[in-house]
Amino acid sequence: MDFSQFRPLDETSLIEYIKTVPSLSDKLGNKFDGIEIKEVGDGNLNFVYIVVGSSGSFVIKQAIPYVRCIGESWPMTKERAYFEAVALRKHGHLCPNHVPDVYHFDRTMSLIGMRYLEPPHIILRKGLIAGIEYPLLADHMSEYMAKTLFGTSILYNSTTVHKESVAEFCGNVELCRLTEQVVFSDPYKVSEHNRWTSPYLDRDAEAIREDNDLKVEIAELKAKFIERTQALVHGDLHTGSIMVTQESTQVIDPEFAFYGPMGFDIGAFLGNLILAFFSQDGHAVEGNDRKAYKEWILRMIEETWNLFRKKLVALWELHKDGPGEAYLPAIYNNPELQQLVQNKYLTELFHDSLGFGAAKMIRRIVGVAHVADFETIKDPSKRAECERQALELAKLVLKKRRNFNSISQVISAIREIQ
Amino acid sequence: MDFSQFRPLDETSLIEYIKTVPSLSDKLGNKFDGIEIKEVGDGNLNFVYIVVGSSGSFVIKQAIPYVRCIGESWPMTKERAYFEAVALRKHGHLCPNHVPDVYHFDRTMSLIGMRYLEPPHIILRKGLIAGIEYPLLADHMSEYMAKTLFGTSILYNSTTVHKESVAEFCGNVELCRLTEQVVFSDPYKVSEHNRWTSPYLDRDAEAIREDNDLKVEIAELKAKFIERTQALVHGDLHTGSIMVTQESTQVIDPEFAFYGPMGFDIGAFLGNLILAFFSQDGHAVEGNDRKAYKEWILRMIEETWNLFRKKLVALWELHKDGPGEAYLPAIYNNPELQQLVQNKYLTELFHDSLGFGAAKMIRRIVGVAHVADFETIKDPSKRAECERQALELAKLVLKKRRNFNSISQVISAIREIQ
Repeated sequence: MDFSQFRPLDETSLIEYIKTVPSLSDKLGNKFDGIEIKEVGDGNLNFVYIVVGSSGSFVIKQAIPYVRCIGESWPMTKERAYFEAVALRKHGHLCPNHVPDVYHFDRTMSLIGMRYLEPPHIILRKGLIAGIEYPLLADHMSEYMAKTLFGTSILYNSTTVHKESVAEFCGNVELCRLTEQVVFSDPYKVSEHNRWTSPYLDRDAEAIREDNDLKVEIAELKAKFIERTQALVHGDLHTGSIMVTQESTQVIDPEFAFYGPMGFDIGAFLGNLILAFFSQDGHAVEGNDRKAYKEWILRMIEETWNLFRKKLVALWELHKDGPGEAYLPAIYNNPELQQLVQNKYLTELFHDSLGFGAAKMIRRIVGVAHVADFETIKDPSKRAECERQALELAKLVLKKRRNFNSISQVISAIREIQ
Repeated sequence: MDFSQFRPLDETSLIEYIKTVPSLSDKLGNKFDGIEIKEVGDGNLNFVYIVVGSSGSFVIKQAIPYVRCIGESWPMTKERAYFEAVALRKHGHLCPNHVPDVYHFDRTMSLIGMRYLEPPHIILRKGLIAGIEYPLLADHMSEYMAKTLFGTSILYNSTTVHKESVAEFCGNVELCRLTEQVVFSDPYKVSEHNRWTSPYLDRDAEAIREDNDLKVEIAELKAKFIERTQALVHGDLHTGSIMVTQESTQVIDPEFAFYGPMGFDIGAFLGNLILAFFSQDGHAVEGNDRKAYKEWILRMIEETWNLFRKKLVALWELHKDGPGEAYLPAIYNNPELQQLVQNKYLTELFHDSLGFGAAKMIRRIVGVAHVADFETIKDPSKRAECERQALELAKLVLKKRRNFNSISQVISAIREIQ
């Protein structure tokens, strides 16, 4: 078969392909009998194959030039696989513990071969719906965010290194535009793509479209999303992009990666934890009221931010004499000043994170793509009740984010809405 | 002669070169006898030749791979000519009245052929030192800034167009780094490049290096300069980059062009007018106390911002149904909301402009490159007195810029310092 041009693979042609790629066939010990291949792409965009042989395994992810769940009528550049591979490698280099290894990348085929995250790894969102606690989650995710965001910012790099990489990721504009549309635009206007738990939330969705204060804030965040090249962000860091076990936390699927505001990643993760929190009442059953689990989620939210803050500052201290352009040692080398600039930086980042997090919550309730946390609540009136609380919190946070001085104040606001 | 590789030209080889370029030789009617060529590069970086024949004229600007005023020991990419040419053409397309025509560009030779701005055009800074009024200055410069900044921002363009151009100008990083160093870093630390009117300003220069509040603010501006791709800015819009007559205003030399914060251009222009203001007492002579001229400068400062604001809003209104990504008509199509977002946008831009303007003032007094406005004041104690006032104003504005609600409040602050 000819793989010198793009062709979408299936189970059969995939084996032929693997045979032509030493880095992959070596993983299988070059034994192809009894290989198991399973297509598991439950995302909206790509095909994902798990390949397991007797002496090794991997995952093959192939992008196709349209949105899988819609079909060829919604074209979407398959070059996204290139940016995903570059981001996986960059982030993996900075934080190998929480990013799966890339074994192989083929730009023509838009195909990534990478570590198979074996059972009991499951998607974090599924674990949150099932009410499972992950004791290391906040520790791992704060480490991932601190290392990847710090390491791709001008806190750590020279402007030369920074702008070269910024230029490259400008090429991933098509995926950025998708985010612009579904996060920052569609929820605030009438759009055929929008949906919500109707009729219960009809008035709530309308209220968002009529809320001038909210629209002023979302415009500021949208401009920041497009214009601010603060770090190489994952770009889609919700709880469906994270695989977990009790010991392991792995971040996958950075095909939306680009140079944007750090708060977009932090907010995505925290916002999706908050969505998970508000969905819990819908999953409560006799004998399991989810109360303790809700407290655990709140603790994760609080710990993630507080640990992130600590780890970012630690990295900053560690590398303060390095080539980072932002705070030259000859200017910022006194402890008092160091603390002043760190506090200012982190306060702004906190407010950014709250804003983006709230925007991500809103779009999951009245926009095109919803979250399983709510979707799996069968009773629509119950679901709408949960969603409305999340929406109220998100609106409050988006509009008043600058009034929050600590994550514990956010936790209090969440409790008050409940 | 071989022009297929870079070679620095002189008066003789330049004629040979022109003969090989139809767009240039045509300008001279293909008559080369009696052509006058004069090298006039009084800037720090390039060679500039005025070429005048009997039936036409132009200017040739050639970049060399080092800083002209220092020599080969300070290398500087000659690719800057490429970015200058692209910026001249982009800005010229958006604002043909105030950007000279480019006739020819040769990337290999790092050479631009462009309109000769014939006498009585002079550099604005020289006019300001001579005490000459230019009645159309505020009108022209506000038009130039509104059109070029609006037209290269996401107020006007789709994200796709925007990011393609952002990626290209990331290539001009070497010139950006020079600005980072001389504007945002060197003045705030001990640097061999720094100088000031010594010993008069020794304590003032030291005070800047010890001012934590100032350093906190300059860090924020530096990060914005590097990270915020708001518009294609000129990048060096001081009064030495503007040529004027009573009727004409032409902006030249955008070799520092890149995608950065709009306020960097606006601030450069306003900040240099403020420097001109504070230098006037040093140029006062018997019979000409410069008092009326100082009032004219203050009027120009006030009018430039107010007209810029008006023109930017007018462009925004005119194109509000266009492809600009920032404020989609379906979301922002009500007059009350439109006014809210415009006010917010322009308030932030005003504070940015004040911050960058102040930073540009400070670096011209205690950094490497000074301005003729002060340098031509022969008596050093007199000069230092003028410079100190400018420095005090700049420090105040940099630290308290968010407290200024209008340009007239800035004018009042300038008057108070005097």
